[in-house]
Amino acid sequence: MKPVTKTLATLAITAPLAACTVGEERPNIVLFLIDDLGWLDTSVAFGEEVYPFNLRHDTPNIAALAEQGAILTSAYVCPVSTPTRTSIMSGMNAAHTRITNYTSVNKDWNPDATDTPSEKLDDTVERTDWNINGITPHGGLDRAVHVTPYPQILKDNGYYTIHVGKGHWAPNGTPAANPYNMGFCVNVAGQVAGKPRSYYGEENYGNTKDKWNYFSVQNMTEYYGTETHLTEALTLEAIKTLDYPIDNGIPFYLNFCHHAVHTPIHRDPRFFQKYVDRGMDEGQARFASMCEGVDKSLGDLMAYLEQRNVLDNTIIVFMSDNGGNSENLSKGGVRHTQNSPLREGKGSCYEAGIRVPMVVYWKGKVAASTRLNTPVVAEDLYPTILEMAGIEEYKTVQQIDGKSIVRLLTAGSKMAKEAMESGQITDQKQANNFVVPLSVSGIDPQREVLAHFPHQWKPYQLHDIDYMSSLRKGDWKIVYRHREQTLELYNIGEDITERNDLSKEREEVLKEMADALTAKLEGYDALLPTFRATGERVPMPNQLIK
Amino acid sequence: MKPVTKTLATLAITAPLAACTVGEERPNIVLFLIDDLGWLDTSVAFGEEVYPFNLRHDTPNIAALAEQGAILTSAYVCPVSTPTRTSIMSGMNAAHTRITNYTSVNKDWNPDATDTPSEKLDDTVERTDWNINGITPHGGLDRAVHVTPYPQILKDNGYYTIHVGKGHWAPNGTPAANPYNMGFCVNVAGQVAGKPRSYYGEENYGNTKDKWNYFSVQNMTEYYGTETHLTEALTLEAIKTLDYPIDNGIPFYLNFCHHAVHTPIHRDPRFFQKYVDRGMDEGQARFASMCEGVDKSLGDLMAYLEQRNVLDNTIIVFMSDNGGNSENLSKGGVRHTQNSPLREGKGSCYEAGIRVPMVVYWKGKVAASTRLNTPVVAEDLYPTILEMAGIEEYKTVQQIDGKSIVRLLTAGSKMAKEAMESGQITDQKQANNFVVPLSVSGIDPQREVLAHFPHQWKPYQLHDIDYMSSLRKGDWKIVYRHREQTLELYNIGEDITERNDLSKEREEVLKEMADALTAKLEGYDALLPTFRATGERVPMPNQLIK
Repeated sequence: MKPVTKTLATLAITAPLAACTVGEERPNIVLFLIDDLGWLDTSVAFGEEVYPFNLRHDTPNIAALAEQGAILTSAYVCPVSTPTRTSIMSGMNAAHTRITNYTSVNKDWNPDATDTPSEKLDDTVERTDWNINGITPHGGLDRAVHVTPYPQILKDNGYYTIHVGKGHWAPNGTPAANPYNMGFCVNVAGQVAGKPRSYYGEENYGNTKDKWNYFSVQNMTEYYGTETHLTEALTLEAIKTLDYPIDNGIPFYLNFCHHAVHTPIHRDPRFFQKYVDRGMDEGQARFASMCEGVDKSLGDLMAYLEQRNVLDNTIIVFMSDNGGNSENLSKGGVRHTQNSPLREGKGSCYEAGIRVPMVVYWKGKVAASTRLNTPVVAEDLYPTILEMAGIEEYKTVQQIDGKSIVRLLTAGSKMAKEAMESGQITDQKQANNFVVPLSVSGIDPQREVLAHFPHQWKPYQLHDIDYMSSLRKGDWKIVYRHREQTLELYNIGEDITERNDLSKEREEVLKEMADALTAKLEGYDALLPTFRATGERVPMPNQLIK
Repeated sequence: MKPVTKTLATLAITAPLAACTVGEERPNIVLFLIDDLGWLDTSVAFGEEVYPFNLRHDTPNIAALAEQGAILTSAYVCPVSTPTRTSIMSGMNAAHTRITNYTSVNKDWNPDATDTPSEKLDDTVERTDWNINGITPHGGLDRAVHVTPYPQILKDNGYYTIHVGKGHWAPNGTPAANPYNMGFCVNVAGQVAGKPRSYYGEENYGNTKDKWNYFSVQNMTEYYGTETHLTEALTLEAIKTLDYPIDNGIPFYLNFCHHAVHTPIHRDPRFFQKYVDRGMDEGQARFASMCEGVDKSLGDLMAYLEQRNVLDNTIIVFMSDNGGNSENLSKGGVRHTQNSPLREGKGSCYEAGIRVPMVVYWKGKVAASTRLNTPVVAEDLYPTILEMAGIEEYKTVQQIDGKSIVRLLTAGSKMAKEAMESGQITDQKQANNFVVPLSVSGIDPQREVLAHFPHQWKPYQLHDIDYMSSLRKGDWKIVYRHREQTLELYNIGEDITERNDLSKEREEVLKEMADALTAKLEGYDALLPTFRATGERVPMPNQLIK
């Protein structure tokens, strides 16, 4: 970024009213959030080794970001979109917000009832009353959680806050449907829908008489009738909104939320043919082109920031809102194997559903090419972003569950870098297992990571996805299946595939983990499913231990 | 507005990066543009007297604005929406841009062909190739005019530029469909459509499966399913976008373009019943409630600006984009009389089509409660707004036809005020006829005002609307009917109703005016209709003089 004095001098010629800084220059911050991008969907290997599926998609820009920043190898979010996005916006765990499933397109609509109606399900358990109206920046809305979104705090502290793309924090008809209520100065194409009606400019992104529904994308009318894929259109729009703050030396926060790579799996014409030529089936090639599309978007954004001389002062947080979809046939390949070696995918509390790619670029603060193993969760972003912005004091109506990972990113990455330089770390496996102690990062490397999905996802039962909770602590992970009231125990460190259930062999660990999961659920006053026959809540996990 | 020092001091507590001003504080500017609001549709009497139709609608806030500002009694625009809006954005006359009709919702669609197809018309003349793709901020678009929109110049000079509501500068699929390409930092609900699909929150403003079309309103999902009339929703949104610049002491330009009071004539529930109770028919009461709705919007905006202490430093330009619709049955009343005593209405070159309400509020600069008689045209807004913003030097790709009316507003209103105080002006008629000379205002009070509509408006012929041009100069006005190749001459000063055709009695004036109209059309290289039989252009008006 240009020195402030130069910025002011340049501005003085054209603008009588210029911006002036006091003290240290504040960084710009970009949250680059991809939808449904799996842990194995990029060429960046987040695991201990490069797995075959890391080689499917060309993502050179994400790889370049990782080379210049830190890879978070244990980043966890929720199994589906809204809980992650509302956790990010609230700083609260999804079990705590009780926003545990995706919100619908209209107020008071319960997707449990509209998309997966109980009467069509032959099941023993039933969903309970979760917060179907998502979060709200105002009070007084039923079945919604009143929160102070951090973009509001950023804006109140002089940041220029921009939202682009998918919101999915709440339904239409409620305040959080509107990014202008969430603390954003600018909203481009922000909408409540969980996916776009179409990615194709040729189809007006779903805005035609025969295609229109609530998932049709807003604000993209410039590109109607063109071959511009939605990913590219959103990128062009995001860049346009940055001119104003950069021209005027105002720090910005860009909440760049791509619809890709969520269904519908619509080819990105810039990259599709390449993957066909590599022998992929139609669905795989379409999905691969979408993954490379978001990679290109990141590259285009970074090129623009560099051209404007602000890249060095811009923090970029790259991540996904949940794991890769492994049950949708349109992605091609073989169902339920899409995230191998991780088990299952989106919707599930197995690793593939909740463990996501995450990279943080922060020049001069985050040591380049480092890997950080400490678990990071969605709700950490709230205090982290505010600390990145230098905002120390702020008030919120909600209680924040997340922890700032700024020290992990800065002191932690420095420590990891030193370990690499001193020869303590010599390969990827060692790097992935390097532990930054609590005393350095401020975050317990053994912190508990909860995932909680007391729902059926689809109109048909999915054994490894529906009605699950899980808790990871260190290498151990317990999985609770609500429908069957069974517990499983895995050692993630040794068995990342979660195929070797140790619940029988390691009963003492199972009991500890069941107690921990129970305490966590009780601490958040989490909802659990009920038995249809009795209306009783399913047992807490510790009640299942004999 | 708060003193700058106080603003800075307040900001310093929370914001390390605060705004600082150099020299005189620059004013905020609001263009409050109503759609289809007729000259007689407010309680402000723009004429020499208060006509009965001035008493139909309660518009206390517009009246208050007029009391604090200047009334422009001879404000002229184009007969339909797009030509006026593109004239404003380009500073060019519509005959010059050759954007003489309303643009369609999709690129390359010609409403002449889609809405009023020639084969269905039994007519002797035909429309020619006008610029159906409107204006464009980029080059390289067929049948469009490349212009530098003034919001871009404002933005480049440090203004925070906001667009809210109807754009209608160009079709979907072109750059000007997107306000972010037009120099706006923020776009709320900006769209190309000439009207909204619905004003009703209960109908999601047209966003339902059975109602959706390209006229459905974007960005209003917060209000879906509520009783919020679109006029109110847009007002709430406009106000939200102002927090950022006001909090940070940045001058703003708000391009607030209401959809109201265009068709569909959908009741504003806040005011509807009152007008029914006064004995209006259903359509009249609906229309009246919409007029009061935009008045309320103005009041709400001004109350907000006052509460934020910036009203005194905010210029408000209130006007309409064309005359009141007099041929739509849904407005109730008697067709073709809606703008009495003015002749006809929207679409026509008679006064009711092109003469519109206009008020300018500018505290300390515009003398309050004054009336200015000098003709003002749509394209004047371009240089006027830039001069108001203190921007003296700027480059445009187009040649600007309009003239700044800043001196008319400032020195002119001061002169009018002095005439009132000295007893030279004692009543409304005298005030309406008070002449500010060229030497004071910089604008010739006898300047020529061209209107040009070489089109058929509706799928049926409208004798007093279709295929017309007119020129006003001083009190004289010539009207050229292209279809019949006839000329009419009126003395507007004595006969505002345009019922007394003096073309036979005053042949020497007719000839002068025909020459003036011809020169103006030729000067702009204006399009004229062609004869179907021969393909020849209809004659220039001076060719019709024997």
